[in-house]
Amino acid sequence: MSVNFDISKKVPVNDMGLENLLYEPKGNVGVISLNRPEKRNALSRGLLMELTGFINELALDKKVNVIIIKGLGKTFSAGHDLKEIYESDPQEVLKLFQTCYQTMQAIREISKPVIAQVHGVATAAGCQLVAACDLAVAAEDALFGTPGVKIGIFCTTPAVFLSRNVGRKKAMEMLLTGDLISASEALLHGLVNKVVPLENLDSETFSMAEKIAGLSASAIAVGKRAFYQQLNMDDFQALNYASEVISLNSTTRDAREGIGAFIEKREPKWKD
Amino acid sequence: MSVNFDISKKVPVNDMGLENLLYEPKGNVGVISLNRPEKRNALSRGLLMELTGFINELALDKKVNVIIIKGLGKTFSAGHDLKEIYESDPQEVLKLFQTCYQTMQAIREISKPVIAQVHGVATAAGCQLVAACDLAVAAEDALFGTPGVKIGIFCTTPAVFLSRNVGRKKAMEMLLTGDLISASEALLHGLVNKVVPLENLDSETFSMAEKIAGLSASAIAVGKRAFYQQLNMDDFQALNYASEVISLNSTTRDAREGIGAFIEKREPKWKD
Amino acid sequence: MSVNFDISKKVPVNDMGLENLLYEPKGNVGVISLNRPEKRNALSRGLLMELTGFINELALDKKVNVIIIKGLGKTFSAGHDLKEIYESDPQEVLKLFQTCYQTMQAIREISKPVIAQVHGVATAAGCQLVAACDLAVAAEDALFGTPGVKIGIFCTTPAVFLSRNVGRKKAMEMLLTGDLISASEALLHGLVNKVVPLENLDSETFSMAEKIAGLSASAIAVGKRAFYQQLNMDDFQALNYASEVISLNSTTRDAREGIGAFIEKREPKWKD
Repeated sequence: MSVNFDISKKVPVNDMGLENLLYEPKGNVGVISLNRPEKRNALSRGLLMELTGFINELALDKKVNVIIIKGLGKTFSAGHDLKEIYESDPQEVLKLFQTCYQTMQAIREISKPVIAQVHGVATAAGCQLVAACDLAVAAEDALFGTPGVKIGIFCTTPAVFLSRNVGRKKAMEMLLTGDLISASEALLHGLVNKVVPLENLDSETFSMAEKIAGLSASAIAVGKRAFYQQLNMDDFQALNYASEVISLNSTTRDAREGIGAFIEKREPKWKD
Repeated sequence: MSVNFDISKKVPVNDMGLENLLYEPKGNVGVISLNRPEKRNALSRGLLMELTGFINELALDKKVNVIIIKGLGKTFSAGHDLKEIYESDPQEVLKLFQTCYQTMQAIREISKPVIAQVHGVATAAGCQLVAACDLAVAAEDALFGTPGVKIGIFCTTPAVFLSRNVGRKKAMEMLLTGDLISASEALLHGLVNKVVPLENLDSETFSMAEKIAGLSASAIAVGKRAFYQQLNMDDFQALNYASEVISLNSTTRDAREGIGAFIEKREPKWKD
Repeated sequence: MSVNFDISKKVPVNDMGLENLLYEPKGNVGVISLNRPEKRNALSRGLLMELTGFINELALDKKVNVIIIKGLGKTFSAGHDLKEIYESDPQEVLKLFQTCYQTMQAIREISKPVIAQVHGVATAAGCQLVAACDLAVAAEDALFGTPGVKIGIFCTTPAVFLSRNVGRKKAMEMLLTGDLISASEALLHGLVNKVVPLENLDSETFSMAEKIAGLSASAIAVGKRAFYQQLNMDDFQALNYASEVISLNSTTRDAREGIGAFIEKREPKWKD
């Protein structure tokens, strides 16, 4: 991974026509970098629309099995562009949040795991982005928070996925005080999966992504979708649904190959 | 904070006409003390009705931004008054629990954060009270539990908020064994936000309250309400709702002032 | 407890006519052992049907207050019988998962706490079984995981109770990587209640079971049922329901006896 965390200027627009993002495919892993380092990767409406569109494109890219979202420059993302909110009328503000909704939905709907790779700060909508991803790896120095309350705008949208990652009391504390929490606290409370030294952040995140990318893409597609569907159901409604899903999953080519290989004690070969 | 934890007698009824509570306003923080130390602050129907009424009064008190609930004497609260339950007929018992329901609802409905300040024991409905508050600070020696099972009455009502603060397995263990857990376990499992030495309990809780009380009351009012509303929704139903809420929040005077101050790099001045 | 963890052969069929289970009543505790050590206690359809039927029988056995489920041989359970899945047509596979659903439902419906006692591995449906039990005690060397993704069949059914025991991010990590977690991680994330040295596993699990078995069976029956019912409700719908349940509970013979004994400072005598 060649990205230098210390760069403070935007990486030149690449030939994919992306203005706010940088994209690097690495084997079966697609690495999307938020590319507004001069704005601490603020999630402007423009960036969000581009991110949604790009995730939707990757949904169709059969070479990519896992996606990493990271930030260029000194930080992951400091949240929405406050100036944009300040200068917009209420209907435009609603459109911004609806655009952000669509990005979260794209992350949820894509049948490939999305991993947040966090360094610096992940605050407000930046923290929401981490919480909405399937997995997250953080640098030891990373800080997480929902400080909107300090500027009179409660982080209500970040609260949604935050409160589905960490317990109620901790989520409320973050939301009511605006205080940032450390990477180790984020790990303890379930907001991230792993904390590593900053110098290993790229390699450790990529290593997790690559491991998952080497497994059956069709099983993961089924499983990711079903995981979130069942979370919002009653216990046995969920188990009944999951029973149908896994029974159908067992008929796929990859399941036949995987179980066959296991029984025959050989390595499975997944469908491309 | 002038309250002495060692007092074992009821503080004389003050001029507010409260019989089971003591109230001290401290700046923008309202401190409610359960004032039945001789009964380990048992949550009798009388106390609960007074507490509900008083919280509802504070809802209208514009000088109070944050509420602390604590216990006078040696303990926070040992739960309901067992003698009261023992001597009541079933319909009266139901009325007691419905009265308790109303207290929990008042804590939820008031648009100001409510912090439980816990020392000694918080058991049964006392533990429920901690779990139902927005935040909780505990002394190192505090103990939490749902021991009803030991006297043939399962802590079903405490189970509701307990199981919304801590994981299923731990909640079940507390409910099925009746064992008490320490403050540090309560912290680890998400029942409290902070554990401090007993001698610092008043000052640390007040300090957390004061910090929150200095932020935008209107943003907190919006945020507290929306936080709990969205918790009970499906993920994207919640995010859609939250998007509407935050867009409206962005139009408030405090949000305009807060974001403006942030952009201009000055301190915001909140609406009284 | 006489079971030797090192045995590698099936314990001879006992006089209860059980083929895949061994049953030992010990006072008020019923110990069910999965008895297919040569198959790492794979949860074949036959075993699951037998387990469901046997749990339903114990539901009627008034001498048994608490149930322990453990595994004979080197491991708790490695999940479903992959060969059985491989050789079945899709409709038969669905029947297998529906049979497994019925086992989980029997554990949920029985009005007696069910404790998983885990050593060796608890993977896939074995991990699901641990997650679905009311409580779990693990040996220090125990490993937990949902490795289906490695053989092309995502652990969608295990995901249901796993994700209701541990946080989203950790559940997703286990499901997407297939990696096993240690007993101490399982404890930290809420999948088990206690971790003990292997040599104490039998005695510590039995001790927890015996303690619960000595409490009021009628209170526990009411409480277990209500606990899971309320978990799937909105907060105040749950509290309203719980208020009705606890009011009725307060009228039982055991509650009258338990509260009376407490007031009179004597030991309660529970109904047999």
